[in-house]
Amino acid sequence: MMHNLIGKQMYEFLSDLFPICRSITGGGVRQTLRAIQKHIPIEIREVPTGTQAFDWTVPREWNIKDAYVMDESGNKVVDFRKNNLHVLGYSIPVNKVVSYAELQEHLYSLPEQPDAIPYVTSYYQERWGFCIAHSDRVKLKRYNYKVFIDSELKDGYLTYGELVVPGKSQKEVFLSTYICHPSMANDNLSGPTVATFLAKWIMSTDRRYTYRIVYVPETIGSIVYLSKNLERMKKNVIAGFNLTCMGDNRQYSYLATRMGNLYVDRVALNVLRHKHPNFVKYSFLDRGSDERQYDAPGVDLPVCSVMRSKYGTYPEYHTSLDNLSLVSPEGLYGAYDVIKECIFLIENDHIYKIKCLCEPQLGRRGLYPTLSAKNSASTVRNMMNFIAYADGKNDLIDISDKIGVPVWELYAIIDQLKSADLLDVLDITE
Amino acid sequence: MMHNLIGKQMYEFLSDLFPICRSITGGGVRQTLRAIQKHIPIEIREVPTGTQAFDWTVPREWNIKDAYVMDESGNKVVDFRKNNLHVLGYSIPVNKVVSYAELQEHLYSLPEQPDAIPYVTSYYQERWGFCIAHSDRVKLKRYNYKVFIDSELKDGYLTYGELVVPGKSQKEVFLSTYICHPSMANDNLSGPTVATFLAKWIMSTDRRYTYRIVYVPETIGSIVYLSKNLERMKKNVIAGFNLTCMGDNRQYSYLATRMGNLYVDRVALNVLRHKHPNFVKYSFLDRGSDERQYDAPGVDLPVCSVMRSKYGTYPEYHTSLDNLSLVSPEGLYGAYDVIKECIFLIENDHIYKIKCLCEPQLGRRGLYPTLSAKNSASTVRNMMNFIAYADGKNDLIDISDKIGVPVWELYAIIDQLKSADLLDVLDITE
Amino acid sequence: MMHNLIGKQMYEFLSDLFPICRSITGGGVRQTLRAIQKHIPIEIREVPTGTQAFDWTVPREWNIKDAYVMDESGNKVVDFRKNNLHVLGYSIPVNKVVSYAELQEHLYSLPEQPDAIPYVTSYYQERWGFCIAHSDRVKLKRYNYKVFIDSELKDGYLTYGELVVPGKSQKEVFLSTYICHPSMANDNLSGPTVATFLAKWIMSTDRRYTYRIVYVPETIGSIVYLSKNLERMKKNVIAGFNLTCMGDNRQYSYLATRMGNLYVDRVALNVLRHKHPNFVKYSFLDRGSDERQYDAPGVDLPVCSVMRSKYGTYPEYHTSLDNLSLVSPEGLYGAYDVIKECIFLIENDHIYKIKCLCEPQLGRRGLYPTLSAKNSASTVRNMMNFIAYADGKNDLIDISDKIGVPVWELYAIIDQLKSADLLDVLDITE
Repeated sequence: MMHNLIGKQMYEFLSDLFPICRSITGGGVRQTLRAIQKHIPIEIREVPTGTQAFDWTVPREWNIKDAYVMDESGNKVVDFRKNNLHVLGYSIPVNKVVSYAELQEHLYSLPEQPDAIPYVTSYYQERWGFCIAHSDRVKLKRYNYKVFIDSELKDGYLTYGELVVPGKSQKEVFLSTYICHPSMANDNLSGPTVATFLAKWIMSTDRRYTYRIVYVPETIGSIVYLSKNLERMKKNVIAGFNLTCMGDNRQYSYLATRMGNLYVDRVALNVLRHKHPNFVKYSFLDRGSDERQYDAPGVDLPVCSVMRSKYGTYPEYHTSLDNLSLVSPEGLYGAYDVIKECIFLIENDHIYKIKCLCEPQLGRRGLYPTLSAKNSASTVRNMMNFIAYADGKNDLIDISDKIGVPVWELYAIIDQLKSADLLDVLDITE
Repeated sequence: MMHNLIGKQMYEFLSDLFPICRSITGGGVRQTLRAIQKHIPIEIREVPTGTQAFDWTVPREWNIKDAYVMDESGNKVVDFRKNNLHVLGYSIPVNKVVSYAELQEHLYSLPEQPDAIPYVTSYYQERWGFCIAHSDRVKLKRYNYKVFIDSELKDGYLTYGELVVPGKSQKEVFLSTYICHPSMANDNLSGPTVATFLAKWIMSTDRRYTYRIVYVPETIGSIVYLSKNLERMKKNVIAGFNLTCMGDNRQYSYLATRMGNLYVDRVALNVLRHKHPNFVKYSFLDRGSDERQYDAPGVDLPVCSVMRSKYGTYPEYHTSLDNLSLVSPEGLYGAYDVIKECIFLIENDHIYKIKCLCEPQLGRRGLYPTLSAKNSASTVRNMMNFIAYADGKNDLIDISDKIGVPVWELYAIIDQLKSADLLDVLDITE
Repeated sequence: MMHNLIGKQMYEFLSDLFPICRSITGGGVRQTLRAIQKHIPIEIREVPTGTQAFDWTVPREWNIKDAYVMDESGNKVVDFRKNNLHVLGYSIPVNKVVSYAELQEHLYSLPEQPDAIPYVTSYYQERWGFCIAHSDRVKLKRYNYKVFIDSELKDGYLTYGELVVPGKSQKEVFLSTYICHPSMANDNLSGPTVATFLAKWIMSTDRRYTYRIVYVPETIGSIVYLSKNLERMKKNVIAGFNLTCMGDNRQYSYLATRMGNLYVDRVALNVLRHKHPNFVKYSFLDRGSDERQYDAPGVDLPVCSVMRSKYGTYPEYHTSLDNLSLVSPEGLYGAYDVIKECIFLIENDHIYKIKCLCEPQLGRRGLYPTLSAKNSASTVRNMMNFIAYADGKNDLIDISDKIGVPVWELYAIIDQLKSADLLDVLDITE
């Protein structure tokens, strides 16, 4: 089945990207974007260190080759080559022998999750450090240790990827995802994975809208992107999705826009209510990703998130346990499919208006039973209800919401009524 | 008591109309309208076959004299003269001997209600057929049968009745009912019965509004009527009731307008909440009668239904069990009374404005206790609350809703305040 | 602690006023206002008998020196000097011997509260009478009694107190309380007590708004006051509190304005929801004090009440049981404190607008952790949420309501953001 195939392809794609050591700048980001480029024609853009972006400045570029903590016997008790989470993100270089006590000040672990290596970063304050499973930390003996981090912080670039898929309209649907986390799966490789496969599908369709898909480092990347594109985006973007946490198979989640009642909220809620009625609904107060920037006051882009298990809510979040066993082809496909359904709705959303006064005589068109009965079939009922609310004011989402029928059951009805020349279709953006 | 008398008169009126074989056209409709004419001066109007009405065309006129199914021994195993539901509505004539197998293709019965003759029609597709209790159908032997239907389909007329009772204002209250079902009581003779007795009462009153009361065949009749009257109705109709299913004594029901929040919805909900708080509330999605046309997009008339047991919701619906034992004088009077209360409210609905600033000194007018007490009586409380919301913005319905007091308990308060020259009364239609 | 001190001072102030025999006019009102004058510089104003005020007329002034019912043995079985509630308020003078039967017609008691002397008045109808505990009434023997009331009704004045504390703005916060009840504590001395101590605090602050604090006899006093001040008040008053029933320690209560959704309702509800979430919410239909006049149609001042146990809802209400043991320093301080918090919110309520696009980089300002973690602290979270809704449209109450954080936790955040030059502050009244 198609979904098995696409789910499997996404899982393989994600697995290939998993080992790369990403951060908000540096070689890991470039390597990731180039891997994506093998699938879709994204542009890779570089913004120099020191560039101002609103209240922020592009930091120095960070790269790392190796890192470890070695005991006096020459055993690496912490080894970056085994798991790139072991190094505090953006660690400055270090190469010296330290006491047990000094080492402790540079170790990060989670006593309540003793087998997990935590993910910790220090982008804007110079530090060096190691992240370690607490169960390993307590085994360390009171000896001296060699600490070695072969990293480099230098003027360079912030790198991001961008793909614009033009449609008939200049109005845009905006998809954003981030590519700055080292080896973690649900947060965050699931986002770029779903984004890439959505891009493939979008390019294959006959589009009404233009699609803008960006792969940025979280926070600084979206701020930099906005600083270069804000005016055009404010003019054109009609709906946006921040793609994150789309890989596990436990639940569906929705994080509203700042306003909570924008067009994209109506789209996402309509699809989720019918497709995954048990989805978990979060308010903007629960936010934590790039919607913080996109929806900020004055930016005001309509960006929400449709997710599987949301960041911060599942135990493996921001640890080494968020790995390839947490995500699955089914989890990825489910997230891909619901965003696809949202986009399909946006593409097909119009204001509908029945052409005749009173109900049309559907019987003579073969669309209504010619024999009366005590109960009418739900397909006839849905068509009559669609007609009743196709009044030139309601768009497809309104009609679906009012009559309680999923939009995907209305597409065939719309086609039948259009074939019978009974329906005027008005553009919602006019 | 008055209500016993009117209830009894309505039940007798309904019983007299019960035996007539009605359909959407033909002699049964004319006979019914002429019987109504003996009570109120309706105009009977005829619209020729072939007349266009929006998407519809007036069909040929159907009349029937006799029909039966006869076995080889000459016994009538199905006999139209025993119950006019036995013939499929709008059956074409037939007179031949058919095999048991062929007969089966023309029989309609309800296995789940074996003793009920179903009501089935085929207005716009030529068919012949018989409706039969399933318990009788299973007794039929595998012989040949003579099938005989002495019906006629010919160019003729669609017939409807209309009564306009002028008021001081050209603004109209619209009452519509249908007269197209053969011998069934709750659906549908209760509607024309209540309409006729409401018309008698309306004619006896000093009216503010004009009343338009129509008796049409369902669907095609309301469409034809709208095609001839739409512009004037859109200009004038402020509230409308589709009168149907008003005869049993089990419950009260309310079916909202398409918008659900129009003036007539406020009227009906206010009255029902106070008078019959256990009423069942249906949305427009549960519709099934002429509000399908009156409330259609572009027609947009404010027509709701206040009913007893709604069509489609009670087991006897559209069968021979919907007979004179299902309806009662009490059932009919209850429905009549609630519509009358709605009309009384519409007639008395104004925007009220207390004339003085601060509370008036009601004590010196004998309207307030001169001795203070720990608690005030509810009548004083109601008057003070009425005054508090008589601010020149709220109409009577608003005030009743806000202070939680039925309108019929406010009429006396309004009279007292008007007598004391404390109240300005503003027209809601100005 | 400060609150113990103020609570104690308020209780002492209330105790000093308790013995005075007040009514809607007369020496008791003047004596009360002069006692208040020792604390705050109110103006005492006199309005002559016969003055018209909207639909009302200032009545004759009432004063009383003594009153009793004496049995044939010369024992005072009812004695005004023991409790001033014993005399029906506004009793005309009387001095005669009456039979047991005639006496009964002039006695008021509460069979269901046999030990309580009820509070009863007859302001606008001439009567004489005595209020008595029912347990004492049933002990009266069937003898004759001397009834003596040394009262006087004569042309005089209605007296009220007024304090205007000017602020930077001409816009006003209005505090009203009444001073017309004889010796009762929760209703009503708690109101003037809290009003007086609020006035002291207001005078000690650097004010944005002007404060108008009035002490009037209930109903006739507020009507007279409105008749002299309405136009200016309609122009200037942005929020008002009718101060009543603020002395016991059982619960907090809120009585909405007539509209229920005015600015002062938003203020009071915001403060109460966070400070006393179990408060009892009453609608304007439950009103019973001077909001009846202030919120009346055409007057339309935004006056609500924040109370402890509301008038009419506690058993001691309007009886001799509403005495000094019912109220407490804690009860008074709690009521004082919540009104103070409301006023503090009104003083600090502005529309806020974050100056930069996207989130500001708080880390470099020491306002955000430089090390990432799985969870962020609530103080950081509150600041980020404040920023997210500081969009130039929301005022402080909107932001507090949207992000679910009490305003008193936001004041420090606002100061920090202002110090960092990140916040524009717009006046809500502009």
